[in-house]
Amino acid sequence: MQGQIVETKFITFERPFRLESGDVLNPLEIAYETYGTLNERCDNAILIEHALSGTAHAAFYHEGTKKPGWWDDMIGQGKGFDTEKYFVICTNVIGGCNGSTGPSSLNPATGRPYALTFPPLTMRDMVEAQRLLLLSLGIKRLRCVVGGSMGGMQAMQFFCDYPDMFDSFITIATTMRHSAQQIAFNEVGRRAIMADPRWNGGDYYGEISPEGGLSVARMIGHITYISEKMMQEKFGRLRKDKDSRAIFRPTFEVEHYLDYQGIEFVRRFDANTYLYITSAIDNFDLVSSMSGPGRIRGEGRARGNALETLSRKRGLVISLTSDWLYPPPQSQDIVRFFSGLRVKISYTEIATDHGHDAFLTDHMKQSLIIKSFLDSIERTR
Amino acid sequence: MQGQIVETKFITFERPFRLESGDVLNPLEIAYETYGTLNERCDNAILIEHALSGTAHAAFYHEGTKKPGWWDDMIGQGKGFDTEKYFVICTNVIGGCNGSTGPSSLNPATGRPYALTFPPLTMRDMVEAQRLLLLSLGIKRLRCVVGGSMGGMQAMQFFCDYPDMFDSFITIATTMRHSAQQIAFNEVGRRAIMADPRWNGGDYYGEISPEGGLSVARMIGHITYISEKMMQEKFGRLRKDKDSRAIFRPTFEVEHYLDYQGIEFVRRFDANTYLYITSAIDNFDLVSSMSGPGRIRGEGRARGNALETLSRKRGLVISLTSDWLYPPPQSQDIVRFFSGLRVKISYTEIATDHGHDAFLTDHMKQSLIIKSFLDSIERTR
Repeated sequence: MQGQIVETKFITFERPFRLESGDVLNPLEIAYETYGTLNERCDNAILIEHALSGTAHAAFYHEGTKKPGWWDDMIGQGKGFDTEKYFVICTNVIGGCNGSTGPSSLNPATGRPYALTFPPLTMRDMVEAQRLLLLSLGIKRLRCVVGGSMGGMQAMQFFCDYPDMFDSFITIATTMRHSAQQIAFNEVGRRAIMADPRWNGGDYYGEISPEGGLSVARMIGHITYISEKMMQEKFGRLRKDKDSRAIFRPTFEVEHYLDYQGIEFVRRFDANTYLYITSAIDNFDLVSSMSGPGRIRGEGRARGNALETLSRKRGLVISLTSDWLYPPPQSQDIVRFFSGLRVKISYTEIATDHGHDAFLTDHMKQSLIIKSFLDSIERTR
Repeated sequence: MQGQIVETKFITFERPFRLESGDVLNPLEIAYETYGTLNERCDNAILIEHALSGTAHAAFYHEGTKKPGWWDDMIGQGKGFDTEKYFVICTNVIGGCNGSTGPSSLNPATGRPYALTFPPLTMRDMVEAQRLLLLSLGIKRLRCVVGGSMGGMQAMQFFCDYPDMFDSFITIATTMRHSAQQIAFNEVGRRAIMADPRWNGGDYYGEISPEGGLSVARMIGHITYISEKMMQEKFGRLRKDKDSRAIFRPTFEVEHYLDYQGIEFVRRFDANTYLYITSAIDNFDLVSSMSGPGRIRGEGRARGNALETLSRKRGLVISLTSDWLYPPPQSQDIVRFFSGLRVKISYTEIATDHGHDAFLTDHMKQSLIIKSFLDSIERTR
């Protein structure tokens, strides 16, 4: 029997949406899904932020499909994010390629896809778009904003920019800023895309897309998403193809696995979106963003108010022991930063061999920790 | 003042050279350099094995050039490999692109470059070619065979296949076999090359080569060659280009650095060689190679003789603390394996922040350790 059905909804804002760069998007379309029911006080919402390759389809099933949303194990009746209690919302980030305005959307000024005329994008732009959506749904105050990986970056940015809007935030397997090595991995992925002649300066819509380059980018990423131990236990040096003469076709099972990941990804993802979003990730620097025109900085009373507000907030920071993309010390930096802002922080390291992607797969432990955190928020409201 | 001058020499064998695959190369050309003087007993030779992107030009200067060989800090008068005492030899591996027969060499059967008609290549093939060269130089017994990274793989293979030929071996920052993750990194590099339309099934000689793909492959490799800490200290989040609109041009210094590594590499390296050699590395499995038609296996007296021979040999295994490409536990496996064969092994972990590439750069510590090891070999001969 299929589970609960959900439909992706779309909302279009036909007024100028100004980005941090000063550029304007108009119209702005946002794809989103909701699970559970908004209560009368409109204060039981939880916003789920997706990671690099995620979509608004976080849970439940689309009519007639067999694969549920990407965090279905975590969202639903009795699950970590209990839809009996909470109104759970997930949006596709702007710049994305799954329903929200992004480089593959039509640029009204030209009647053609934006491609590289799409403006530079930041994490703050993504959450500002989500804020528009939330306000249009009548939601001014949420229980929690939560995300893993890039989703955690959005969650922290949103929480810091609008501390009045949230009782709490949850981050899983993320960082406040990319290290040189993390930038390096993303840069190589971008180079792989841009080295593909089919990328054609970003102008490939209607033609064959730069599948080769995008698939290499995904393969590089995927190496960082799972732990060395898991890769070794799953594949080791096993060979699928014993023909040693086929040296440049995949022979090791790990090669087949990565190849599959690449092929599967190019079917559903846009290469320009990969460039825009990984750049937004590399440029993300939470602390710097707060010393700009951020809301915590302020002067005199404004700053005092913001800090006073933050001291009544809660945060849950989760790291994964075998995550070598965003290792636990980067989550510990998050704990220190928010503790310094007097936010009450809980920190948990989940013991797992599954690497970074455990935030998508190890739902049992995550559910328990998150449930208990959200329950404690309820009790102290 | 320029240092000592050396010339790359070439030797051509015009008889069938049979590879492990059963294929034959004829002619076989080997590029090599020598430093120091072969003594009258012809027993003071040391064979240096190069890594993935190395050449026969290990030390000294080519006439009129300003950059010495890749291990010049280690080889020369009074250095780790003292050319006052030893006759040091380095060859370009077959399959390579710096003078020895490889995929860019002319296939005499067609009059065109081999490209992918070059046969599959193994680590054993590389050392068998070196053996031909050594015998032609009148060298039947060497003090040592030594190499870092892939050079260490060759050194172990050569030592195990011909224990009578060597008093000792030295490996630095290497492994007896690739893990799934190590294969994965190489595979992504290969995919990057093969996804470049200019690769053209390997048939690009005389045309523009798959520079984009090869440079991406090199960038991926380079991330694994240096430590995260070194990358962070050297580049952190420093930006070269403050123009935040230039989001898909390198802006972070680490991006510029990787770009430079890629560009510099494509000038001097052949994409097909990259495919052949990384495949040889991935397929290398020292223990398995010994249980095939290897020389240690043997039966009855032959095996007994081989083990008796090995028990009179010495090995020096060096690992680098911050090497995350071939981390110290993989060197410790080497120690266990050779100790099990009753070879007398010395093991040292060099404390360094420079990652895998420290075998090319941290010459002071390496020199001392190697000098003292070689001296002790002299004393016990």
